[in-house]
Amino acid sequence: MMRQAGRYLPEYQEVRAKADFLTICRTPELAAEVTLQPVHRLGVDGAVIFSDILLVLEAMGLPVRFEEKAGPQFDCCVRSKGDVANLQTEAVAERLRYVAEAITLCRKELAGRGVPVIGFAGAPWTLACYALEGKTTREFLVARRALYEDAALLEALMGKIAEATAAHLIAQMEAGATVLQLFESWGGSLGCEEYACYALPALQAVIARVQKARGAREVPVIVYCNGSAAHLHTLSKCGAEGISVDWRLPLDEVRRRVGPEIAIQGNLDPAALYGSPEQVVDRTQAMLGRHSGPGLIANLGHGILPDVPVENAAAFVRAVQTWQNPGA
Amino acid sequence: MMRQAGRYLPEYQEVRAKADFLTICRTPELAAEVTLQPVHRLGVDGAVIFSDILLVLEAMGLPVRFEEKAGPQFDCCVRSKGDVANLQTEAVAERLRYVAEAITLCRKELAGRGVPVIGFAGAPWTLACYALEGKTTREFLVARRALYEDAALLEALMGKIAEATAAHLIAQMEAGATVLQLFESWGGSLGCEEYACYALPALQAVIARVQKARGAREVPVIVYCNGSAAHLHTLSKCGAEGISVDWRLPLDEVRRRVGPEIAIQGNLDPAALYGSPEQVVDRTQAMLGRHSGPGLIANLGHGILPDVPVENAAAFVRAVQTWQNPGA
Repeated sequence: MMRQAGRYLPEYQEVRAKADFLTICRTPELAAEVTLQPVHRLGVDGAVIFSDILLVLEAMGLPVRFEEKAGPQFDCCVRSKGDVANLQTEAVAERLRYVAEAITLCRKELAGRGVPVIGFAGAPWTLACYALEGKTTREFLVARRALYEDAALLEALMGKIAEATAAHLIAQMEAGATVLQLFESWGGSLGCEEYACYALPALQAVIARVQKARGAREVPVIVYCNGSAAHLHTLSKCGAEGISVDWRLPLDEVRRRVGPEIAIQGNLDPAALYGSPEQVVDRTQAMLGRHSGPGLIANLGHGILPDVPVENAAAFVRAVQTWQNPGA
Repeated sequence: MMRQAGRYLPEYQEVRAKADFLTICRTPELAAEVTLQPVHRLGVDGAVIFSDILLVLEAMGLPVRFEEKAGPQFDCCVRSKGDVANLQTEAVAERLRYVAEAITLCRKELAGRGVPVIGFAGAPWTLACYALEGKTTREFLVARRALYEDAALLEALMGKIAEATAAHLIAQMEAGATVLQLFESWGGSLGCEEYACYALPALQAVIARVQKARGAREVPVIVYCNGSAAHLHTLSKCGAEGISVDWRLPLDEVRRRVGPEIAIQGNLDPAALYGSPEQVVDRTQAMLGRHSGPGLIANLGHGILPDVPVENAAAFVRAVQTWQNPGA
């Protein structure tokens, strides 16, 4: 699940009562502790490292604050070529060493259990949106305006972000991450052709660097895109081994659009975890039944919501783990 | 253009300096004046009545406030079957008579010029989102939660909204509107199957009522859906004569998905009006070139942005009006 180690778990709230969000991220012991909570509580088949996609921007020189309700806020935004030039790409992985250390701690805790540790980062277009907007917005108009008014600035910005992001992902792999995810949270804000022309090349650059550093190791790369309905064919060319999708399209339609070669991850509407556990099981089985054959990683279509009952999250996990694929 | 009579025009700002947004909506002379401003200034081929989709909810008993920056806010939200029962559907058109009067004034002003007057309303799912959330949100989680937790409540709410909305659209037609639009602004928040199962029937109910009242009159109905990439096939069954789409998919792909029988309206990214007027012309021609054959109403893919230069809006209109369809 996305945001798997997070707000819906009471044991996470206990840790949060003692430490704020960024302190947990930056303290390997705490980050590892909350990362492992859903493995212990729900028996999920993977541990998603507790971290945030915006930490790469902070390591590049854009400090971020996380405030309750207001969401992430940057004090300075990128506005000019000079601002892009000032962004640092050297030593980003070193400044984010605490993420790698948390991953290594999780690997030790999980030794012999066969549970992969999943590292992640933000995709370049999505991080560029934050760097340009300074916060989460509904339409990312500053970033879209930059694309139409000064595409060279946007491309330079995404190029530097791609470099820093690849370094961060490679460091997570070296520390023991056995799956790497890239989050294109705001891919849905762009038109199909603008995504293919501007966002895709920067995403491909990250993946190519990671795969080169990976060599023969089996560390698959998965790209999540929210609002992906217009972009699935484009995303199928990004080079990743898996595409993770939101809940708008059923999985058979997703499969038709990405082709037979790529693993699909998804895609229950996070709001479908409301209702009774029995309803959650029915909806999860219906979702799984839309995909035939191998190559599916069951997941939500976006982050788990903070007030979902834990028993409903458990019902989702149980429905997946007991699923008998009729097509297998 | 959507929000055609609006914030980017200096003559609109002059009216706004004297009267707030709701006062303009509720004063037929002022609403007609700003409705006609873009006809006079830009020579657009249609006059979109100055109004707001939330006025129907207000007429049903949910007062709305429009605050600068905060967006629309409702003081009370729908939470229970009792709240739905309290919503009024009688006399909604009478309470919104000022919209009809503004339309009649516009028709008089435009007499003999062949410029249609376009009336509109919100689609039931979109208005239900506002009734349940009380404001614009990014993900409409209260509304999506209602769908999964209490679908009967949602269906009852959309049923009453559909009734009130049809009455308002019919009153606009009787007052002289020659095109009617329905805005499904938040259609993109739902999965494809949830949209087809819950939102589509309520939308079809509105359109069927309007078409029955229309009789032999030529008053086409157009449905706009934002985030429509997952819903185009579903929307093609709503009964409308036209589907208006956002900017995520190129028009040839939209045509493939809605079939050959329905007019398409769209779909330049509103952010593509930034840059130089020459760039706007190039982008508009590229957009038009993706659709071959008849049945296209050129438009933006969402509302025009408030700080777009007027000369760029003019360049968009000129590019459309001088377009020579190579396929014609």
